[in-house]
Amino acid sequence: MPDYQAPLRDLRFVMDEMLDYPAHYARLPGGEEASPDVVAAILEEGARFAREVLLPLNQSGDQEGCLLEGGEVKAPKGFKAAYEQYVEGGWPSLAAAPEHGGQGLPHSLAMVLNEMVCSTNLAWGMYPGLSHGAADALRHHGTEEQQATYLTKLVEGVWTGTMCLTEPHCGTDLGLIKTRAVPTADGAYDIMGTKIFISAGDHDLAENIVHLVLAKLPDAPEGSKGISLFVVPKFLPDTDGNPGERNGVSCGSLEHKMGIHGNATCVMNFDSSRGYLVGPPNKGLACMFTMMNAARLGVGIQGLGLTEASFQNSLAYARDRLQMRALSGPKAPEKPADPIIVHPDVRRMLLTQKAFAEGGRMLVLYTAQMLDLVEHGRDAAEREQADVLLGLLTPIVKAFLTEVGFESTNEGVQIFGGHGFIKEWGMEQLVRDARITRLYEGTTGIQALDLLGRKVLMSQGETLKVFTKRIHKFCQAEEDGELAEFTGPLAKLNAEWGELTMGVGMKAMQDREEVGAASVDYLMYSGYVTLAYLFARAVKQAKAALAAGTDEAAFYEAKINTARFYFQRLLPRTRAHAAMIQAGAAPLMALSSEDFGLGFEI
Amino acid sequence: MPDYQAPLRDLRFVMDEMLDYPAHYARLPGGEEASPDVVAAILEEGARFAREVLLPLNQSGDQEGCLLEGGEVKAPKGFKAAYEQYVEGGWPSLAAAPEHGGQGLPHSLAMVLNEMVCSTNLAWGMYPGLSHGAADALRHHGTEEQQATYLTKLVEGVWTGTMCLTEPHCGTDLGLIKTRAVPTADGAYDIMGTKIFISAGDHDLAENIVHLVLAKLPDAPEGSKGISLFVVPKFLPDTDGNPGERNGVSCGSLEHKMGIHGNATCVMNFDSSRGYLVGPPNKGLACMFTMMNAARLGVGIQGLGLTEASFQNSLAYARDRLQMRALSGPKAPEKPADPIIVHPDVRRMLLTQKAFAEGGRMLVLYTAQMLDLVEHGRDAAEREQADVLLGLLTPIVKAFLTEVGFESTNEGVQIFGGHGFIKEWGMEQLVRDARITRLYEGTTGIQALDLLGRKVLMSQGETLKVFTKRIHKFCQAEEDGELAEFTGPLAKLNAEWGELTMGVGMKAMQDREEVGAASVDYLMYSGYVTLAYLFARAVKQAKAALAAGTDEAAFYEAKINTARFYFQRLLPRTRAHAAMIQAGAAPLMALSSEDFGLGFEI
Repeated sequence: MPDYQAPLRDLRFVMDEMLDYPAHYARLPGGEEASPDVVAAILEEGARFAREVLLPLNQSGDQEGCLLEGGEVKAPKGFKAAYEQYVEGGWPSLAAAPEHGGQGLPHSLAMVLNEMVCSTNLAWGMYPGLSHGAADALRHHGTEEQQATYLTKLVEGVWTGTMCLTEPHCGTDLGLIKTRAVPTADGAYDIMGTKIFISAGDHDLAENIVHLVLAKLPDAPEGSKGISLFVVPKFLPDTDGNPGERNGVSCGSLEHKMGIHGNATCVMNFDSSRGYLVGPPNKGLACMFTMMNAARLGVGIQGLGLTEASFQNSLAYARDRLQMRALSGPKAPEKPADPIIVHPDVRRMLLTQKAFAEGGRMLVLYTAQMLDLVEHGRDAAEREQADVLLGLLTPIVKAFLTEVGFESTNEGVQIFGGHGFIKEWGMEQLVRDARITRLYEGTTGIQALDLLGRKVLMSQGETLKVFTKRIHKFCQAEEDGELAEFTGPLAKLNAEWGELTMGVGMKAMQDREEVGAASVDYLMYSGYVTLAYLFARAVKQAKAALAAGTDEAAFYEAKINTARFYFQRLLPRTRAHAAMIQAGAAPLMALSSEDFGLGFEI
Repeated sequence: MPDYQAPLRDLRFVMDEMLDYPAHYARLPGGEEASPDVVAAILEEGARFAREVLLPLNQSGDQEGCLLEGGEVKAPKGFKAAYEQYVEGGWPSLAAAPEHGGQGLPHSLAMVLNEMVCSTNLAWGMYPGLSHGAADALRHHGTEEQQATYLTKLVEGVWTGTMCLTEPHCGTDLGLIKTRAVPTADGAYDIMGTKIFISAGDHDLAENIVHLVLAKLPDAPEGSKGISLFVVPKFLPDTDGNPGERNGVSCGSLEHKMGIHGNATCVMNFDSSRGYLVGPPNKGLACMFTMMNAARLGVGIQGLGLTEASFQNSLAYARDRLQMRALSGPKAPEKPADPIIVHPDVRRMLLTQKAFAEGGRMLVLYTAQMLDLVEHGRDAAEREQADVLLGLLTPIVKAFLTEVGFESTNEGVQIFGGHGFIKEWGMEQLVRDARITRLYEGTTGIQALDLLGRKVLMSQGETLKVFTKRIHKFCQAEEDGELAEFTGPLAKLNAEWGELTMGVGMKAMQDREEVGAASVDYLMYSGYVTLAYLFARAVKQAKAALAAGTDEAAFYEAKINTARFYFQRLLPRTRAHAAMIQAGAAPLMALSSEDFGLGFEI
């Protein structure tokens, strides 16, 4: 069975040494609560919960799946008990505001813990995970009464939330939704329609479920400007705020999926269910993005968590499995063969996982600071700059970390050879679970359009410049020192990033399809450069620690070697992406839709 | 449910127009039987069988899986009946020699048909597929008696074969096997041991199963020089050659796998089973490579078949699914949204699948001609050159086509969005089935070592030169014409291929680990250049057809556009691979095995 140890040493490096989280937290209102000691204690306790409670349920949950019986969904064995422990431990309320019953700790801390949950049991993690988006929507757009009724329960964790957006005929294009909301005499709404792919849509973990539902009012404008957001509870709260009458919403069926079997992916039927408007009429799309942005960061963390899980188990196997001698001669002559970690190609795969795990962790923690600052930055300028960077980095976190997460979990299977394909080893489950992360909450293609079209080009490149200026300054300050090995290539790429952006922008003025043609390569390019910046900073930190004297020299040397691997063996992928960005739309648009199938159509 | 049409038009293009199979067949002994009419009729009948018989069993076979009951394995419903039709149709004997009961048609023709089988039901195709390797081993190394007893039955298809190599502690490193073969008084052997991952190890499709088993004689030398090959039938043939007494070999358990659920992957227990030596004692590894090379080409074709299957269904979905408007304005204003095939990023994914399917098909058919010539070339020089090219191309066919096959089936899931993750659409099954192809019959890493270490560097680069000279001549002949758009970049890459080889070779003289460090990037680089050569030839053919006048101009234009997409949007990946080859071993070897886990180990 797979094992897992939370990467506490690496987290300490990134948080305490590299990104100076202690100072960051000290500046946040209430952040004095998040002292280094408290943070360390919380992370250790989270690590224990993930390893001891969640990990043992991961393979059994995958095998067992969910069950729909008598209109009610049951999660796999042990999931409910684990959730009860989670609620008792106060985990759901960690980063929520005190006025809603939360502990007021920074959001970033919840994100760190989420990595551990995703490493050990992704399917389970989605039950509480979906609540955050619902809570965010209610916190920002709900009435005081809605907050008192639903938000406090979500924060406490006794109720969970969902996001009901997708319908059979539309996912990306929510302007097409058909679910209707008809006002009732008492100011509520009758919600009618069918939603699909609803994660944690029904289950037995919590006493009530709070659905956040997109629907159209009778007089709504066409398309995405006519969408409103509603809260629809599974049980209507009684006068004491406890679950009362059953509402007209139920799970019609469970989807059979490639992975995340332990999470109930439901078709939800809204059959004259009672709902309440959240935010202004026809402004549901904006409210939805409040949920969506949090969810997107969460999915990026899923990619990171699965990468780390696959890496740790691949490493153990590569040290243990004896096969062939090293090409340069036996390394373990006393054994019948060498452990496969001696082989350079196995090391290439392990280092790929390691670099994406450590690089992804830096990216998440860097982005998490922006999230903290958007809400609690000291002044408007700081909040605004954090918001710009958060907007830029969110699609990168979501899409880049899930793309490389899928690659990394597949390297895990590859390191295990044939055994990687066999269920009992647990490596193929990580691949199947990772596969959804490239799809939900907006596919990689959608993230790429958000990054290049919405964030970068719509701001005339200004958004990007906020970030590339930071990189430029860093490179400039370090260009002659012993960091030149890293800042040299980084500075070149950073300049090229701007040039590529300009190039696409110019072409897009002639033909808007150029944006879509470049977008995914642009996103991947952006991801590689972003991680290069963070690795260069990590090297700076590691070198400083070595220079100051340390009894952990091996740790810091390993960090520098991982960065060097990243720069020499992963970063060259930017050469391909840059060329493909520059190739433009013509080779994609030349073929007419009818002619794609001439090789096989009769 | 997924649909499938055999790509008969594209096959005709590659076989008849581009690679001149009619002339190729006319030169082979007995090749006059394979007239264009006969070939066309066989392909059409094979297409019908694949679509009407195999395809309907693909999803049900995946859901149902195999069953081990009372020591006997049952394949999924319908598999046995389909196999009976297959045998009745004479398919197993198509390319076998007449002296063994075969129809004497060229091997290449069987490979073309195999693509259709792999597109429609990979798991089913492995039952007859494994027989080919076993038959090859017996044909080359078996005694006349063994051929009369086993080979004729395998050719007829009433018995099937297996390859029993892997054991729990060794797959790649077969020198470590523990299975023993002890001579009996009557000249046979007692085989004792356990083999794992035995595809089609037991099943109810055929009346007998012929296991080809690697084992060690009592006095065998250590390691891979002490391996012998044995034939071990499930039922010992009686004096009439019919299945008689049950032999001491049985399926101990079925593996639970990520995919190919319809094929029985068995743990096989050899418990004092009776076996017969095939080939000389201790020369089993060489005999095994006879099986292995055929099997490796077969696995490459699996990658191709799955690519085509995913492409066809993705195309249908992309034309049908309405979502968002084109960035440049509505393309289907009469509909609520545009079909997603208008979006450049969806086209990028479709064209990636299309280019890999068409490129892979050219590569397989090009390689298949070499296979025909190795056996039936007119003179020794022709046979020898074909053998050199076959050796060079086999690891590329195997590893490159399965790597890009996995990518292509994943693009299929991505095009379907969330629906791609749902089992009923069939796209995720293609990914799960494709995942094994990167592993079995030698992982991508093993193929890469075979290509760079064994084939290229051990011949001092001479093997590669046979091929690069062909490419060079082609480019030289076409450098000024309207093909320059393709031959220009191709000639550069072809020269770089030689330089990269030389560079690794020089470094490897200092440090043998440089071979392993470069190998996988080298293999992928080689694959991209090889496909570029074939696409350039396809363009030449298409342009000639257009110049000559044709009523299929759209087909030839589509071919040219696909080649252009390949050159501009896939071939730039060589930039990354070249840089990573040149980065060498240092960044992989710097970290000591102990230091890989310092981020999480306590």
